[in-house]
Amino acid sequence: MNNTQKRVESITARDVDFAQWYTDLCLKAELMDYSEVKGFIIYRPYGYAIWENIMFYLDREFKLTGHENVYMPLVIPESLFQKEKDHVEGFAPETAMITTTGIEELTERLIIRPTSEVLFGTHYAKVVNSYRDLPKLYNQWCSVVRWEKTTRPFLRGKEFLWQEGHTVHADEAEARAETLGILEIYRRLGEELLAIPFVTGRKTEREKFAGAIETYSIEALMPDGQALQSGTTHYFGQGFAKAFDIKFQDENNQLQHVHQTSWGVSTRLIGAVIMVHGDDEGLIMPPYVAPVQVVIIPIQGQRDNVKKAAVDLRDKLRGQGVRVTLDDTNKTPGWKFSEYEMKGVPVRIELGPRDLEKGEVVLFTRHDRMKRSVALDDVASMLPDLFKTIHQDIYQKALDHVRSNTYEATDYDTFKALIKKGGYVAVSISGEEAEIKIKEDTSATARVIPFDQTLITKTCPVTGKPATQTVWFARAY
Amino acid sequence: MNNTQKRVESITARDVDFAQWYTDLCLKAELMDYSEVKGFIIYRPYGYAIWENIMFYLDREFKLTGHENVYMPLVIPESLFQKEKDHVEGFAPETAMITTTGIEELTERLIIRPTSEVLFGTHYAKVVNSYRDLPKLYNQWCSVVRWEKTTRPFLRGKEFLWQEGHTVHADEAEARAETLGILEIYRRLGEELLAIPFVTGRKTEREKFAGAIETYSIEALMPDGQALQSGTTHYFGQGFAKAFDIKFQDENNQLQHVHQTSWGVSTRLIGAVIMVHGDDEGLIMPPYVAPVQVVIIPIQGQRDNVKKAAVDLRDKLRGQGVRVTLDDTNKTPGWKFSEYEMKGVPVRIELGPRDLEKGEVVLFTRHDRMKRSVALDDVASMLPDLFKTIHQDIYQKALDHVRSNTYEATDYDTFKALIKKGGYVAVSISGEEAEIKIKEDTSATARVIPFDQTLITKTCPVTGKPATQTVWFARAY
Repeated sequence: MNNTQKRVESITARDVDFAQWYTDLCLKAELMDYSEVKGFIIYRPYGYAIWENIMFYLDREFKLTGHENVYMPLVIPESLFQKEKDHVEGFAPETAMITTTGIEELTERLIIRPTSEVLFGTHYAKVVNSYRDLPKLYNQWCSVVRWEKTTRPFLRGKEFLWQEGHTVHADEAEARAETLGILEIYRRLGEELLAIPFVTGRKTEREKFAGAIETYSIEALMPDGQALQSGTTHYFGQGFAKAFDIKFQDENNQLQHVHQTSWGVSTRLIGAVIMVHGDDEGLIMPPYVAPVQVVIIPIQGQRDNVKKAAVDLRDKLRGQGVRVTLDDTNKTPGWKFSEYEMKGVPVRIELGPRDLEKGEVVLFTRHDRMKRSVALDDVASMLPDLFKTIHQDIYQKALDHVRSNTYEATDYDTFKALIKKGGYVAVSISGEEAEIKIKEDTSATARVIPFDQTLITKTCPVTGKPATQTVWFARAY
Repeated sequence: MNNTQKRVESITARDVDFAQWYTDLCLKAELMDYSEVKGFIIYRPYGYAIWENIMFYLDREFKLTGHENVYMPLVIPESLFQKEKDHVEGFAPETAMITTTGIEELTERLIIRPTSEVLFGTHYAKVVNSYRDLPKLYNQWCSVVRWEKTTRPFLRGKEFLWQEGHTVHADEAEARAETLGILEIYRRLGEELLAIPFVTGRKTEREKFAGAIETYSIEALMPDGQALQSGTTHYFGQGFAKAFDIKFQDENNQLQHVHQTSWGVSTRLIGAVIMVHGDDEGLIMPPYVAPVQVVIIPIQGQRDNVKKAAVDLRDKLRGQGVRVTLDDTNKTPGWKFSEYEMKGVPVRIELGPRDLEKGEVVLFTRHDRMKRSVALDDVASMLPDLFKTIHQDIYQKALDHVRSNTYEATDYDTFKALIKKGGYVAVSISGEEAEIKIKEDTSATARVIPFDQTLITKTCPVTGKPATQTVWFARAY
């Protein structure tokens, strides 16, 4: 079992250096690799397959709720980009620009989209004329470029993959409902696919998106006590509509500006899955998002009966839609065990000649590292329930972590101590003045204003002024 | 029926101006729109949905044949791009480059990928070490940028969407088999999904891809007699492997360079579907690739029984996986008829109160513009066969067009006359000298060297030298 030891030892332990554990795992589980340009990563098959499963889930949900996919250009003329003032201020420093081609300098610089509000805005201005044209519920799957200084695989990149929804509506209520409806889809993506209990809520003025009236967010809590903003939805009101002149004739023949939203999640979610569930042995993939749900490992696989049983089982599982891999390479079983444990494959089935004589196999579940003997004939039929149990176990563990690391603070010293410890700390503050002071003192930021609002204290522990709202703070990625 | 007339009249007739008919249709069928930057188009929902159906078909085929999806960066450092000489010469003039960001000039220019051979090559050099790592069969779905001077929607753009497969193999035979295997998948995509009879074959030296040893192609014949190269597969030999140092240890512990392929189809296929099948009334969408397969149009839709029957039918069809739209807006039936005819929806079902009393509906098929009465209860069960028949009819029509516009030439005057007439002209030529002369004299190019080789004449009609191979020529997009 020399190989096993070696492989596992090569991942830094989480307690020793959480950041290094994360990077080790990204590389060694073959989720990604670095490219020649800093901040631009290569999504390797095992990493990209996670994204494909996320896309599949969301695309279906978006379509069931009436959304349509489009594709907007990669580039935005600089002059067009500058049309919405708040928006351009938020993004201008991070933009990458095409200025020349192989034959000629361009007369106007072209910005590689950091997000596509202005492209959708320009298009909507052309195609929306009447209330009959509304709502328009568009989404696109693409990559965007933001020239970030500090980059980390999946969490923050100069280029990342995402979906960006952009919708226009005849009235405010419908647009606001859209931002909350999508937020709920994102929350369910966490609950049903990623096994991540996202905390949801509204962003403070300071933390909201450039140009938005409201920003809502899903936040995940990492094992190191830091929060990870994992997706956002924005209500723009009529700001973009006025800047881009998106008007429609209402049922009374009056010209009105549309009400607009945008929303997105990105490959950052892959980073969330890695961090929330992984352990010192490697990844733990929740079964519904796992690229490989079951790996079959033959023991003494050169024997005919083992070989046949392995192939038959693989074909049977594949036939019922399980994502299954049979590893019949000539590597040792020990090497394979640690390899697929590191890759977080939820279920391993060991097929050995002796067990097979008894009609049995050994089934190993990655999340609890438990082994048990089961009848070969039962494997296929037991998997749906097993996946469900694994998913629930993993979700519950993550939920327990959130619950045991969420605090309320009634005085500022306690608040600071808790923030230092890690986790979410709820505090009732007077407003932006308190938010700024908290960031200066602790580097924690306002994560969300929860929908369910109760004041913890009547006075803000930071400023001593009357408290106006309860906000969850945390240090964040 | 005033609206109908107006709408249909707004598309230029094909005989009057084929190019204008094409552009009219792209815009009026809402497949695309122009953006603010020339050559960068907006894929609107109806156009993007065609691409989604193509992606769905191909992605499944690729995965069934062992391919995995990855995502490589958008950008290539200029120095890296220049590693493979033939390749860089082919693409350098068309490249767009990022030179600056919102805060700083870059120290090295970054090329927006025009294709990703060099990115895959660099990555493969890192991850391929042993024969056990081979083959690697990667594909990616993305957009690429090529600074074309003349652009047309879907056919030639500065940015387009595509898939690019890049594979590395231990030996030449397997790599060559890969290029032919993918070519066959592309051919079947035409036969089974797009209803386009692609002609397949090898490209001449002059026409092959920059850096390739062999290029294979699928070609479609347009109604104007011009060919459209619709997809290519390339065998690179070990050229890229040597430039990028992609080596592996073989079973005898010898270091070898891999054998490499690449292959791709793009949103140009949407252009092929439009041109091959469309008529003066608009698009004709083959049912399996059609974004909407059936449109239900209620007549006097305000009546309760009509409304109920329409919704019930829609839900029933949707339940069996048919892509169906119910248009219950307050536009006139006549307007709707012409709108969905223009959009090429294969089947229209008219639900009127009188027909319903008899338990009947009117079913209209777009490709032959035939109407018939059918029992409402039979609609759902008849659709699978109906789609099949429509698909076959459309395919046969396109095949007849290819057959009646494919000629053999035994002398050069006849060759020139036939090329002028339009279509494929097969001729047995001596080699590149003849190919160059043909292009100068007629602007026709070698489309393919068919796999099935028989010499038509012993002497090349162009040069008078001994003929060496039979080549299909045509003018091309």
